[in-house]
Amino acid sequence: MLDLETFRHSTSHIMADAVKQLFPASKLAIGPAIEDGFYYDFDTEKPFFQDDLIKIEQKMAEIIKENLPFERTEYSHQKAEDVMKDEPYKIELIRELPDDKVTFYKHGDFIDMCRGPHIERTGLVKHYKLLSATGAYWRGSEKNKMLQRIYGTAFFTKEELDAFLAHREEVKKRDHRILGEDLDLFSIHQEEAGPGLIYWHPKGATIRQLIEDFWKSEHRKSGYQFIYSPHIAKINLWKTSGHWDFYKEYMFSPMDIEGQNYILKPMNCPGHILVYKTRVRSYRDLPLRWAELGTVYRYERSGVIQGLLRVRGFTQDDAHIFCRIDQLHKEIMDVIKLAIHIFRSFGFSDFKIRLSTRPAHYVGTIERWDMATDALRQAVESLNIPYETAQGEAVFYGPKADIDIRDCLGRAWQCFTVQVDFNLPERFDLYYSAKDGTRHRPIMLHRALMGSLERFFAILIEHYAGAFPSWLAPTQAIILPVTPEQIEYAKKTYSELLSKGIRAEIDSRDERLSERIKDASLSKCPYILVVGEKEEKEQTIALRQRAKKDITTISLDDFIKLIKQENNPKD
Amino acid sequence: MLDLETFRHSTSHIMADAVKQLFPASKLAIGPAIEDGFYYDFDTEKPFFQDDLIKIEQKMAEIIKENLPFERTEYSHQKAEDVMKDEPYKIELIRELPDDKVTFYKHGDFIDMCRGPHIERTGLVKHYKLLSATGAYWRGSEKNKMLQRIYGTAFFTKEELDAFLAHREEVKKRDHRILGEDLDLFSIHQEEAGPGLIYWHPKGATIRQLIEDFWKSEHRKSGYQFIYSPHIAKINLWKTSGHWDFYKEYMFSPMDIEGQNYILKPMNCPGHILVYKTRVRSYRDLPLRWAELGTVYRYERSGVIQGLLRVRGFTQDDAHIFCRIDQLHKEIMDVIKLAIHIFRSFGFSDFKIRLSTRPAHYVGTIERWDMATDALRQAVESLNIPYETAQGEAVFYGPKADIDIRDCLGRAWQCFTVQVDFNLPERFDLYYSAKDGTRHRPIMLHRALMGSLERFFAILIEHYAGAFPSWLAPTQAIILPVTPEQIEYAKKTYSELLSKGIRAEIDSRDERLSERIKDASLSKCPYILVVGEKEEKEQTIALRQRAKKDITTISLDDFIKLIKQENNPKD
Repeated sequence: MLDLETFRHSTSHIMADAVKQLFPASKLAIGPAIEDGFYYDFDTEKPFFQDDLIKIEQKMAEIIKENLPFERTEYSHQKAEDVMKDEPYKIELIRELPDDKVTFYKHGDFIDMCRGPHIERTGLVKHYKLLSATGAYWRGSEKNKMLQRIYGTAFFTKEELDAFLAHREEVKKRDHRILGEDLDLFSIHQEEAGPGLIYWHPKGATIRQLIEDFWKSEHRKSGYQFIYSPHIAKINLWKTSGHWDFYKEYMFSPMDIEGQNYILKPMNCPGHILVYKTRVRSYRDLPLRWAELGTVYRYERSGVIQGLLRVRGFTQDDAHIFCRIDQLHKEIMDVIKLAIHIFRSFGFSDFKIRLSTRPAHYVGTIERWDMATDALRQAVESLNIPYETAQGEAVFYGPKADIDIRDCLGRAWQCFTVQVDFNLPERFDLYYSAKDGTRHRPIMLHRALMGSLERFFAILIEHYAGAFPSWLAPTQAIILPVTPEQIEYAKKTYSELLSKGIRAEIDSRDERLSERIKDASLSKCPYILVVGEKEEKEQTIALRQRAKKDITTISLDDFIKLIKQENNPKD
Repeated sequence: MLDLETFRHSTSHIMADAVKQLFPASKLAIGPAIEDGFYYDFDTEKPFFQDDLIKIEQKMAEIIKENLPFERTEYSHQKAEDVMKDEPYKIELIRELPDDKVTFYKHGDFIDMCRGPHIERTGLVKHYKLLSATGAYWRGSEKNKMLQRIYGTAFFTKEELDAFLAHREEVKKRDHRILGEDLDLFSIHQEEAGPGLIYWHPKGATIRQLIEDFWKSEHRKSGYQFIYSPHIAKINLWKTSGHWDFYKEYMFSPMDIEGQNYILKPMNCPGHILVYKTRVRSYRDLPLRWAELGTVYRYERSGVIQGLLRVRGFTQDDAHIFCRIDQLHKEIMDVIKLAIHIFRSFGFSDFKIRLSTRPAHYVGTIERWDMATDALRQAVESLNIPYETAQGEAVFYGPKADIDIRDCLGRAWQCFTVQVDFNLPERFDLYYSAKDGTRHRPIMLHRALMGSLERFFAILIEHYAGAFPSWLAPTQAIILPVTPEQIEYAKKTYSELLSKGIRAEIDSRDERLSERIKDASLSKCPYILVVGEKEEKEQTIALRQRAKKDITTISLDDFIKLIKQENNPKD
């Protein structure tokens, strides 16, 4: 039985063979199979372009046609270095190998150091495709030379390859970085301002405000209150919290203010704890559910920063719940329910939960851990959501649950976390006074539903392919007067919509109607309202719905009713 | 004709005399008249307490009763040093005097180096009061010794003194720092997190959200769009903008990220400019009105930081308008109108505008300056608001207007600024393309209405004395069941209010009703809803309005109608 990994790895040898034949000066680095295919890194004088990939594919076809056998050999270290004498990267690797023997695989004239296994003959490869070329540092380190990587894939059947390529095309079309620019949603100014720092443009900011308003209103209904805390604090706060010890590599370098070191906050928790400590809290005051759209800054290497998905500054939809042990169960249930409700409201319906339990080293009592873990488990089970248990994989301060949401392309994104914390209440000496006046430690829950607004926005853009549902669309309706004679009627329509809280625009540019309809469609606005002589006379509008061909003539009132119905997310 | 300053300065001599008689070891520093009275600084072993002030006042009364004459003398430098030989601070001052002669004033046995003039005799002082004692550095520098300052005041008539003291008492009662703590609105954690950094507690955050929501909605109606920009950027951005040259002392020290210096933003403008530059803007796109509730960080010496009024981190209700020269007039008009509308909505009705015009050194053409200044002037005049012109006092990059608002105690607060800017569009090479395709520079307006949310919150707390109008009150209604039997009815009432978007609380603690009414009153909640057996039976509530004695029995529906009417600010 042929396994796909072996199959793809052999294809990467065939590709390397083709590259060496076409570009004999190129040096081989490594070429493993990966999740969706394979790659091979080469040290070449210039990058590979699309034309090169086509030539390489053609050369691969020749090698496949020859149906060459893959042959395994073992050499001594000395012999191995001889065989690879023109391949400096291979020599480097050979010298690190602990074994006496080094395994090689050969097909035709191409020989590569490789553990194997491989398929029997090159002719078995039929359905393959080179996907892209990109720069990649030797051994992934920016200190090393930049090599040229070619990504490719291979499948057993044509159907599988076609499905993969179609999916890939769809993912590309939905790329939030491209849509973000096309739809004028956000920008990143790597050179001028720095990588991983997001500027939300008016249209993106409108969506963000709609998300925030919805989030706040749902939290208010669920008994949350809000906090605003500053973005910097003295370094000592992070020493008390333990972040300076455990999290330092993600924290930005300190700023000196009057001889004291201040740090940009990577977390909101210590701030909420300071607020907790401003008053003596009674058992009656708990639970306290404090939420903050808190913008945090975390260091990520510039090499791993990517669009809105991996950034240096992002806004967490954070909250901390301070509760008694007898309240923990309900609080966890409610948090998970709220998360699922929010996700459903954005059109996600496929979830997977991972429950992480007590590790070898932990703080708090086993009894509390068990209680918290049971509460998490029961919450998940009562919601009928599939879950897996990651035994012993919680961090030392408490059990947690994560939720992956699956988007319309079936990709899983981790957003939600609820984390039980027995540790910070200890470190900051938090307490509440019981009915009898004795002091007790509250338990803290950390939770973020969407995780980061930036990342969630990326997921939404790709999930909706930029065609946001009406309640989230930055512009809900674009009004197009057929001729300048209808501009007045268009303006009246516009004012009417605005006064009803509908986000509308007029496009009365001196362009042909078909041109303006095309532009409005490209903007992915859900409704296009065309008003001509007939519509003005009848006080109606000609309505085009996004992704629908037919045009309906309706009264403005009916349109307002229609859009108002869509103005709230549906769970 | 006696002038008040002389009169108060003489009173400070009388106070210093009394201090020397009671605390002979204390050393004299300086004792000038100030806006509301006078002070004198002493070097003493221990601070002055309230008891000391009473004793000093009594001793002053004796000195006044003796009706001693103030006598002027002149001494040579040498003689002056002899006379003041036990007063090291005076010696220090004498040695800095350029004149040959040093003037002294003497009454009774007390002699002080002083330019004068003074009143004739101590008996003229009748209506005076010592107000407070506090530490103060010699010559205002933290590097010098901490001295003890006593503040006092004096008036010609008893009526004036009484009025002053009553006003002072009122100001004290409204102190936002005290009310902020009493009403659980915000906190500052000088030790743990740093001075000048504000933590908004749930009740304060509720008010802030209401202010923000109102602000956003008014801006949306006025054709603004919104931006979110990060809190840090590379130092080069601030070099391009010129802030690094002109504003460095207010900027925090840089942070190193991968060998690049980043700065916490003291201003939002460069971020908005980066967004402007992401697209070619056409003459048709202007004006662009981009607003941001942007949190900025500015360095202030810890010595000058004060409550919410002077802080290190604050959120500006900022906006930048990019417009053509032919749009400038309308934009300025609209900005000032919007500001006045917002202020009126918060109950302010007394304004004073200051218009700053072209200084000696400026950028841009005289024609543009005149046009912008005229636009500012016409806007102000059309609104019938008193204004003064500060000739030549604009900064080099454009004319501006500031508005002072006067609170209910008659105190003036500067909040609003609109600033025309000919400079940044130049520095960042901004342009728009005209109808004929040629490139033109837009003009930028910077404007903040409330200025800083933190500072505006301080003004609101003091203006309302913590008794926020219903639309801003963090809790609009507190429901008090008379006995535990009415808890269910109280909860039903509560749910009903909540479902109508009214911010309600129940206080069903096991305390006497009178106690709970007292607590609810102290919280300054606008409505207290008492529900007893009778109310439950009749499905009504017994309503107490804040600051009103009488209790009305009304139906819940009528109450909801009442409060809904108040749910929007009135301009």
